Amino acid sequence: MLTVQLKSVIEKIEDEVISWRRYLHQFPELSYQEEKTSQFIYDTLHTFGNLEISRPTKTSVMARLIGSKPGKVIALRADIDALPIQEENTLAYVSQNPGVMHACGHDGHTAILLGAAKILSSIKEQISGEVRFLFQHAEELPPGGAVEMVRAGVMDGVEAIIGAHVWTPLEVGKVGVRPGPVMASPDTFSITITGQGGHAGLPHQTVDSISIGAQVVTNLQHIVSRNLDPLDNTVLSITKFSGGTALNVISGTVEIAGTVRLFDAEQRLTITRLMERIIKGITEAHGATYSFKYNAGVDPVVNDEKLVSVIQDTVCELLGENALAPIKPNLGAEDFSGFLKKAPGVYFFIGTGNAAKETDYPHHHPRFNIDEDSLTKGVKMFVYSTLKLLHEDSENSIGLLTKVEELT
Amino acid sequence: MLTVQLKSVIEKIEDEVISWRRYLHQFPELSYQEEKTSQFIYDTLHTFGNLEISRPTKTSVMARLIGSKPGKVIALRADIDALPIQEENTLAYVSQNPGVMHACGHDGHTAILLGAAKILSSIKEQISGEVRFLFQHAEELPPGGAVEMVRAGVMDGVEAIIGAHVWTPLEVGKVGVRPGPVMASPDTFSITITGQGGHAGLPHQTVDSISIGAQVVTNLQHIVSRNLDPLDNTVLSITKFSGGTALNVISGTVEIAGTVRLFDAEQRLTITRLMERIIKGITEAHGATYSFKYNAGVDPVVNDEKLVSVIQDTVCELLGENALAPIKPNLGAEDFSGFLKKAPGVYFFIGTGNAAKETDYPHHHPRFNIDEDSLTKGVKMFVYSTLKLLHEDSENSIGLLTKVEELT
Amino acid sequence: MLTVQLKSVIEKIEDEVISWRRYLHQFPELSYQEEKTSQFIYDTLHTFGNLEISRPTKTSVMARLIGSKPGKVIALRADIDALPIQEENTLAYVSQNPGVMHACGHDGHTAILLGAAKILSSIKEQISGEVRFLFQHAEELPPGGAVEMVRAGVMDGVEAIIGAHVWTPLEVGKVGVRPGPVMASPDTFSITITGQGGHAGLPHQTVDSISIGAQVVTNLQHIVSRNLDPLDNTVLSITKFSGGTALNVISGTVEIAGTVRLFDAEQRLTITRLMERIIKGITEAHGATYSFKYNAGVDPVVNDEKLVSVIQDTVCELLGENALAPIKPNLGAEDFSGFLKKAPGVYFFIGTGNAAKETDYPHHHPRFNIDEDSLTKGVKMFVYSTLKLLHEDSENSIGLLTKVEELT
Amino acid sequence: MLTVQLKSVIEKIEDEVISWRRYLHQFPELSYQEEKTSQFIYDTLHTFGNLEISRPTKTSVMARLIGSKPGKVIALRADIDALPIQEENTLAYVSQNPGVMHACGHDGHTAILLGAAKILSSIKEQISGEVRFLFQHAEELPPGGAVEMVRAGVMDGVEAIIGAHVWTPLEVGKVGVRPGPVMASPDTFSITITGQGGHAGLPHQTVDSISIGAQVVTNLQHIVSRNLDPLDNTVLSITKFSGGTALNVISGTVEIAGTVRLFDAEQRLTITRLMERIIKGITEAHGATYSFKYNAGVDPVVNDEKLVSVIQDTVCELLGENALAPIKPNLGAEDFSGFLKKAPGVYFFIGTGNAAKETDYPHHHPRFNIDEDSLTKGVKMFVYSTLKLLHEDSENSIGLLTKVEELT
Repeated sequence: MLTVQLKSVIEKIEDEVISWRRYLHQFPELSYQEEKTSQFIYDTLHTFGNLEISRPTKTSVMARLIGSKPGKVIALRADIDALPIQEENTLAYVSQNPGVMHACGHDGHTAILLGAAKILSSIKEQISGEVRFLFQHAEELPPGGAVEMVRAGVMDGVEAIIGAHVWTPLEVGKVGVRPGPVMASPDTFSITITGQGGHAGLPHQTVDSISIGAQVVTNLQHIVSRNLDPLDNTVLSITKFSGGTALNVISGTVEIAGTVRLFDAEQRLTITRLMERIIKGITEAHGATYSFKYNAGVDPVVNDEKLVSVIQDTVCELLGENALAPIKPNLGAEDFSGFLKKAPGVYFFIGTGNAAKETDYPHHHPRFNIDEDSLTKGVKMFVYSTLKLLHEDSENSIGLLTKVEELT
Repeated sequence: MLTVQLKSVIEKIEDEVISWRRYLHQFPELSYQEEKTSQFIYDTLHTFGNLEISRPTKTSVMARLIGSKPGKVIALRADIDALPIQEENTLAYVSQNPGVMHACGHDGHTAILLGAAKILSSIKEQISGEVRFLFQHAEELPPGGAVEMVRAGVMDGVEAIIGAHVWTPLEVGKVGVRPGPVMASPDTFSITITGQGGHAGLPHQTVDSISIGAQVVTNLQHIVSRNLDPLDNTVLSITKFSGGTALNVISGTVEIAGTVRLFDAEQRLTITRLMERIIKGITEAHGATYSFKYNAGVDPVVNDEKLVSVIQDTVCELLGENALAPIKPNLGAEDFSGFLKKAPGVYFFIGTGNAAKETDYPHHHPRFNIDEDSLTKGVKMFVYSTLKLLHEDSENSIGLLTKVEELT
Repeated sequence: MLTVQLKSVIEKIEDEVISWRRYLHQFPELSYQEEKTSQFIYDTLHTFGNLEISRPTKTSVMARLIGSKPGKVIALRADIDALPIQEENTLAYVSQNPGVMHACGHDGHTAILLGAAKILSSIKEQISGEVRFLFQHAEELPPGGAVEMVRAGVMDGVEAIIGAHVWTPLEVGKVGVRPGPVMASPDTFSITITGQGGHAGLPHQTVDSISIGAQVVTNLQHIVSRNLDPLDNTVLSITKFSGGTALNVISGTVEIAGTVRLFDAEQRLTITRLMERIIKGITEAHGATYSFKYNAGVDPVVNDEKLVSVIQDTVCELLGENALAPIKPNLGAEDFSGFLKKAPGVYFFIGTGNAAKETDYPHHHPRFNIDEDSLTKGVKMFVYSTLKLLHEDSENSIGLLTKVEELT
Repeated sequence: MLTVQLKSVIEKIEDEVISWRRYLHQFPELSYQEEKTSQFIYDTLHTFGNLEISRPTKTSVMARLIGSKPGKVIALRADIDALPIQEENTLAYVSQNPGVMHACGHDGHTAILLGAAKILSSIKEQISGEVRFLFQHAEELPPGGAVEMVRAGVMDGVEAIIGAHVWTPLEVGKVGVRPGPVMASPDTFSITITGQGGHAGLPHQTVDSISIGAQVVTNLQHIVSRNLDPLDNTVLSITKFSGGTALNVISGTVEIAGTVRLFDAEQRLTITRLMERIIKGITEAHGATYSFKYNAGVDPVVNDEKLVSVIQDTVCELLGENALAPIKPNLGAEDFSGFLKKAPGVYFFIGTGNAAKETDYPHHHPRFNIDEDSLTKGVKMFVYSTLKLLHEDSENSIGLLTKVEELT
């Protein structure tokens, strides 16, 4: 019954949420340059009342909803930046900024979180605890805005954080969530092998860095196939290999680089040690030397099991059991993990794929688009799961929502 | 006794030979551009008399010395072009052409052959048969001038050909020669491996051309280590390997290239077949495709055993047994092999190394230089071995030289 | 409250369950030879009344409890065979059969299922549907007894099957269960590479099967590191490599063998195709031939999500939330998957590890033993989850258990 | 003229030489067991007179012919042992010793050297210096009899040594000889790789010695393909690879062994160092350890250039220029190198192949046989080249042979 009330209230603001999203879609801004975007968020939040709004960094926004009674502090996060991609859609609200596009759906994330802020701020007196709305800049560009916001203190006192992604591979109407790892750490590495160049006809007077580099590539395959737990799902890909200039000269150096994807940040040390052991062993085997640089990316996103249960319950209650979609860990990365260093969290996926509406292009595609029906589903998920979390210990979490009906 | 005569005559023209060489050294010209060089040769040959001089190609010169009696036709060859190297010597006769240098000693070769032409043309009436002096352009730049001269007919009727190289790794006073292979074939190859690019975190959706390319490099080592006769001395060097652009993208293609050095042109087919078998097998093993291009370089230089004996005998008689140096096959290349398709030949090495005179820099070095004492030794070698060859069947090959004394 | 009743009833038969387990422990029998074991089961079941007992195969036993009302058919399975291991424990009830030992806990499984049968048969009139107790022979020896029992029809009409393993790596009191894959498929393979033997000094006259076999091993690493989904957790291990006799003879053949562990039986075709592609490509690359034989093991055990929920709920209700242990898939194998071809099922792990009682040796260890406290926990899990499944749609599943109290 | 004389004298003893060879062929004896063989040699030598005959070791024989004038000391060597092969010929003089056969032609070597001893001892008074006839035992079984005879002093004072092999790959009538390396060193090696065994489904808890061993094999290919001078003709063959027992257990150890063939004993240190560097590097790369044992075989046989000239001249004079066959180094081994540590020597090949007589089976074949026409050619070669060497400085080496005519 309550759910019915909540649903109807949220549906009343659907047009508004869509209009916010379309405005943002028209004026996408690159990471760290979200000036108009953050101003729009800032201004819109001010229209809701009941929020303490601030600027943790130059282009991010935080809004605090301090409830009428003490309680937990729950953070909700949306990322707000766009990508350096030229949009190829023919929408009425197509990107007005050449070469920049909301091709990953952050416009939707922002609109959803604004919607949730509007709903929740309207029932401030019924809220125990605090809801903190985090509009994060620069998710697309490492090291990402999350660490900056954390450094600015946005997570101080937070007990749980919720984030989500609209997701075209998932049909609109579905919501995907899983306990444990959901997004990988996108670490990178570079290796220089130094042998001794020389005449291609006199290999014995050289140390042939290309043939040694080939052995390094081949031996590094053992890390995934032999050295790591088969249940770890780690990936090690060598994506660059470059050596040699003239056909008649054996190359004295070779540059190798690549990426490691892992779902457990603690495994990084193991991988680094294994990689260096192999690189060292192979180059020494052939009389060469090496340099090896391993660059940690953002940490993997690992969902808290209990928060996952809350999201699962919310999906079942709001959207029905069939809406709950099983998902696998994703080998892409998300700096949402930056917030998780301060509090447990959950990151879930809001289906927005719809072949009929051509919203089934992959993310980062020039024709990426979302089914806007997913927006209010997102608002509902954030609002309802937040209320569940804030009031899970009280008898009347349901009663808290009675006034929602009067909203707007 | 005769040798004594011959020696003294040749020594009389030493200054002239040196002056020719120094002139040529001052005005080096690149392959196919030997215009002034060939004009100088042409003009100088005209001063000797008794020669039929022609221009087989634009920048090469041929001079025929038709003896007074019929007999064999022996060709003597010098290469005349220079290299795109900026000379760093401080000689009085340093290169006047910026960025161009006689850094391989072809100036010496030309001067030696002019000297031999002068001596031999002066005893025309004592010559049975014909001596053909070939001043070849473009030895340094594949496919080289030899094939062009052969196509122009310079080898028609020739029964044997002699060539030589001044050689800084060999001490001045020594002459090196060996039967069988002396210079290698510098073949080249290029391989493109085409897989399927994609997300570095999703290798199973790609065909990773870099890891496959590494296996190709590693497996190609088997050709020399397992597939070819250990007595063949073949070299296969991979000198270029290039693939990949972004760190988070598995590369869909890889370019591999290198060189093969072989001493037996007939082995080329075997090598090509073995290489393609390996490239095909490895790429198929991993679901990739390939293109493979093998480019035959000039053929190996393989010395005729009997002509080698003539050179060996000449060395012993002219310079003494100790002058004869054992040499190994050289993994560099020489388009002298182009002439060998028409007649057996011998290619030998005239020592010109002398630490005291700083003529021990390697060939193609900006400070390369020769000990000019080697020039008349070269003239002697050419003149004497030619006379031996022309008159080896007559009783009085020695008598033929009596008039040499009166020369100049 | 009901749970309390159930618990107390089951605790009343604890001594009996323990005595059954100890008897079985004393007289372990190898796979397919479980004659006394099955007779003991058969006789004991007869003392319970209310059961239709049969012998699906020579050494297996089935007991059907036909409820008073129609309903679902639920199967419960215990495996009953022992291992060819000499026990090194000093228990009063140590194995009396030399070289044979219940070193994997199947004695416990059998006792637990007998206990469940006793409890459930005592409330026959309250049961809707049917409970089918399957005492399976030969779990330890491929192809295993499950397929034989299935062939004998024991799964006909069954809608769900439940199995469990006492588990020393898990602390007594805990129960582990997970949706999806829990046990792997233990496939095996063998490869023969045929080259051409010959003189070790003349490799070019041979096709060196050892060096080719080494390349096969190395290239097969790519299957896990490059070709399969990193989320698939597949393992490919080469466990045998044998070639060569005399030191001076290149070996013409090599034998390679190993195992593949996978959690999705449908992946078998992919793996087989990938392996053969690599073996074919590498051997063709080097002029050898091959034979390749892939032997499917028992299928992976993949748990049904809804049945997992039932088990999870049962654990929480019976043993408390803290008793529910997260587990990872296990790379060992279980022929329980044979039953899963006929109906969905769930396989869970009953903690029995207890350092204080020295029941923390690994399975198959000569000092393996269980904490007998785990036995009644197992009985409870089977009884309660079965009742939940049979009556999940009725209002009064709880009421059904009222008469349990009067049992024994 | 002299040659004519020598030839005719030697032809007179042809029947005798053949009969010696046939006797020896009938009674072959294995290495170190040449009791009857050495007795026969000893006895036969005694019939020649003029020789000082001794037993340097139990089954070898030395005969010294001290010339009438002082001079050089030249050693001539024949090996006398047979092989553990069952003869499959149907000759009248087929082996009478089951399982033992002169399948390598040492019977011929012995007969030839007896013949040379008979001829030379008959002209003792014309000999300046000393000829030492060495009948060596145990050539076929490492470490071989040569070192024992050297230790017994047989080479003391020797200035040159000559050895030869009858050779079925070479047509009868031909003699092959080359300066420099002729037979290889047959070194052997063994490698143990120690990892950590374990469950085939849990590779990360093991150190997989088979996959590491495969990498060792693959990386060792670089020694020949990349690390050694392409002109060196070295071979490294891995001829044994053995690891693993059960299919479900990753092997903790692997045994690898093989052979190295080299033509320059000084290269042994380089190879050993390169091999160990690779084995160490690869095993360390993968966390394993190793042991490596390299066993030097007999040294390569390297012919002295001047002695080769003597043999070449002898061939031309005795058998004609066309009889001189070019040969390549042979990758088999010969402990003749043991004598070469004490004096320069020459080892040549006496053609004995003749398809018409079915003497073209390879050495060590059960149907191996020689064309007995090669025997007197061998005697001539030894006698004539010895005389040349002893008297090369005297004017009348030719005159020395005048009395040969009167022989027998």
